[in-house]
Amino acid sequence: MSKIYVIGIGPGAYDQMTGKAIRAMNESDAIIGYTVYVDLVKEYFPGKEFMTTPMKKEVDRCVLAFEEAKKGKTVSMICSGDAGVYGMAGLMYEVGVNYPETELEIIPGVTAATGGAAVLGAPLIHDFCLISLSDLLTPWEKIEARLLAAAQADFVVCLYNPSSKKRHDYLQKACDLMMKYKSPDTICGTVSNIAREGQEAHVMTLKELRDTQVDMFTTVFIGNSQTKEINNKMVTPRGYRNV
Amino acid sequence: MSKIYVIGIGPGAYDQMTGKAIRAMNESDAIIGYTVYVDLVKEYFPGKEFMTTPMKKEVDRCVLAFEEAKKGKTVSMICSGDAGVYGMAGLMYEVGVNYPETELEIIPGVTAATGGAAVLGAPLIHDFCLISLSDLLTPWEKIEARLLAAAQADFVVCLYNPSSKKRHDYLQKACDLMMKYKSPDTICGTVSNIAREGQEAHVMTLKELRDTQVDMFTTVFIGNSQTKEINNKMVTPRGYRNV
Repeated sequence: MSKIYVIGIGPGAYDQMTGKAIRAMNESDAIIGYTVYVDLVKEYFPGKEFMTTPMKKEVDRCVLAFEEAKKGKTVSMICSGDAGVYGMAGLMYEVGVNYPETELEIIPGVTAATGGAAVLGAPLIHDFCLISLSDLLTPWEKIEARLLAAAQADFVVCLYNPSSKKRHDYLQKACDLMMKYKSPDTICGTVSNIAREGQEAHVMTLKELRDTQVDMFTTVFIGNSQTKEINNKMVTPRGYRNV
Repeated sequence: MSKIYVIGIGPGAYDQMTGKAIRAMNESDAIIGYTVYVDLVKEYFPGKEFMTTPMKKEVDRCVLAFEEAKKGKTVSMICSGDAGVYGMAGLMYEVGVNYPETELEIIPGVTAATGGAAVLGAPLIHDFCLISLSDLLTPWEKIEARLLAAAQADFVVCLYNPSSKKRHDYLQKACDLMMKYKSPDTICGTVSNIAREGQEAHVMTLKELRDTQVDMFTTVFIGNSQTKEINNKMVTPRGYRNV
């Protein structure tokens, strides 16, 4: 039985990985991932074999991991954030159907929702939805239905992949949908480059968010009707009385 | 300026904390938290002062942390999972309004949603909602509206606090609401005691989940229309073709 660890390395800083993630990489012969993330960890695991595939080559990356494991190597497949949130864990199980002799162990990590929330304050304290605005693998109609449902039920909403070169106006579209049910004054926040060089956080209203330019390294937080700004932090109360 | 770290210690195992969380506790004079979680970390931080308050004494716990910091101590306020997900981060900002001389730093951790997902397989790979079934601080009508919205928009749903002594039939009620829009055959899963002694995971259908007894140490996952069972793991595909 060969072994592949599927590891969430967290937002990017070495000290935001878990001990378990570090141990798994230390125990591995090969570390495989998307080029950008392999570059983030390379210096901490000298002597390991590193292999990368570019974006949109995710299936190839999974096959590579299983083929390397087949040779008898212990393999780490690394993902930014948590491997199970828009990460590689799911695809590894799907591709793994063809490799029944390989055992998968998923090692969780800090995802951008919670890593970014910690920078902004405490926006996700209560019920929230995580929605990716990327329509590469999901029809936009489905994303739209989810945005509307989340807004109507007064969820806090955290948006992944809010923008890209081809989708420069998606955040604007999402904010317009949100404003069908949420007040334009709803407290929102953005965090870019979480726990990495150039980290930047901003708290603003939903109306202001609509006209803000974000990039693919930004995570967006849209509050619920109770979310407030406290000393420039974005805070959603959980509902304790007498505070 | 005194300092309080608000720290997510993850699901419970020492090696599922981040390096940053461990460093912050090492740098602290006092570690404060709910009794059960302080007991989990006590042995790893000898020489620290430990202080606890019981459940439902959350406001007192925050005040205690600020009062200790006021004495010049560096304080860690610890929470299980992530401090910003149904944790103490929000309340600390709210209470902190009365302590402007104290700086808060939130240190994210692995929350039960991602920790439990890693045990079950990859249920949260795509858009999901996190909903707590506890109506201690939230009206049940609001929880109900969120459950229905989440089911209707085909989100994967992760339920926190699915049960307690007083709320023994809440999971059943939630499943009945889900079945208004989700098929009774929807793949679901439960994980108890994530990363702790007695960890247990089960994959089942929504219909079966409805009649399953869970306790307050269980996290529940309800799939979307695409979620499938692969070798007894709960896997939500992200949508890659040709797999």
